[in-house]
Amino acid sequence: MHYTKKDIDEMDRIQRITYINSVSGIKPANLIGTISVKRQTNLAIFNSVFHLGSDPALIGFITRPTGEVPRHTFENILESGQYTINHVPSAFVKNAHYTSAKLERDQSEFENCGFSAEFMLDFKAPFVKESALKIGMRLKETIDIELNGTILVIGEIEHLIMPDAAIDDDNDVNLANINGVGISGLNTYYDLLKIGRFPYARASELPDFDS
Amino acid sequence: MHYTKKDIDEMDRIQRITYINSVSGIKPANLIGTISVKRQTNLAIFNSVFHLGSDPALIGFITRPTGEVPRHTFENILESGQYTINHVPSAFVKNAHYTSAKLERDQSEFENCGFSAEFMLDFKAPFVKESALKIGMRLKETIDIELNGTILVIGEIEHLIMPDAAIDDDNDVNLANINGVGISGLNTYYDLLKIGRFPYARASELPDFDS
Repeated sequence: MHYTKKDIDEMDRIQRITYINSVSGIKPANLIGTISVKRQTNLAIFNSVFHLGSDPALIGFITRPTGEVPRHTFENILESGQYTINHVPSAFVKNAHYTSAKLERDQSEFENCGFSAEFMLDFKAPFVKESALKIGMRLKETIDIELNGTILVIGEIEHLIMPDAAIDDDNDVNLANINGVGISGLNTYYDLLKIGRFPYARASELPDFDS
Repeated sequence: MHYTKKDIDEMDRIQRITYINSVSGIKPANLIGTISVKRQTNLAIFNSVFHLGSDPALIGFITRPTGEVPRHTFENILESGQYTINHVPSAFVKNAHYTSAKLERDQSEFENCGFSAEFMLDFKAPFVKESALKIGMRLKETIDIELNGTILVIGEIEHLIMPDAAIDDDNDVNLANINGVGISGLNTYYDLLKIGRFPYARASELPDFDS
């Protein structure tokens, strides 16, 4: 199938959302935990979390501004300056998916979707007890993307909690060992099966790929 | 294991790169194809490609500026205004990994890493023949991220080429059907195994997660 920009512009809205959300490839499944000044917790699944740099340790994600639709996660992050990023474990993909339902401001996705809020390390924002890998983040910057009205939220890692089991013999992280999952589009979830690890690629040590 | 910001700042550089590149979760494996004004092709693996919006259909990725280290992909995109994003198929992860080696300006990763450049649709930038899903992109905007000197490159989809096999019975994209892969950190590759698909989450139809 070949779709031009014109075909995409004229596509049925749901089909466009479904297709275009998938074509960038697999996305990580993360739960972002926050708390309001009134101490109301919130938990929401995000598939737009991405690595931005390791020194300093920066992570970004994309959100929409608070407009007609309330964005509790973003509001809470602006209020408190803190949030947590928690990997979705494979056994909890259904729970995690339903955190995307639009609950009222005084309802917590922790209780309604079967997750436990974990307060620790003098951190205001709640961690997810069921997640193997969890990160305490401090807000550093928000960047407006005027092309489509989205916002890039950038934070720095304050706390990284990772089980020993995440680390392979070669001192590398193995997401399969901690039952990490991926998402395509908005609704489809995948387990991860490690197939290979290759050394740092040097031009002087290029394998012979002729065939 | 618990690492504070201080622990991360003081970590051995290679360990920090390895760990911090992994903790945001699984990342997509994409090859970005470009061509210079002198018609020299370039192909490079990127794990930072992400969905930015479906209307208009925008995709972003992160790069570093051209400084001491030449950034052929970014230079070519600025020159031509075009690039292609091509999914890495599972059988080609080793080939794709080695496109990260720093070849000379007059060497093409297409030839050296066993990929075929495909010119089509009156598009200047080369597509990857071996990729099942490929996208022709037009550069829309670059945003400097001053926190760490990286650049967010945003483009709009001009052409989307996707095989029929990518589409499931429910008219959703199934990345496993087209042998899509994920990356953690910089070196570890994963196959994708579909485990579930859930409907749009409505607050009025929340499953009972009490247990």
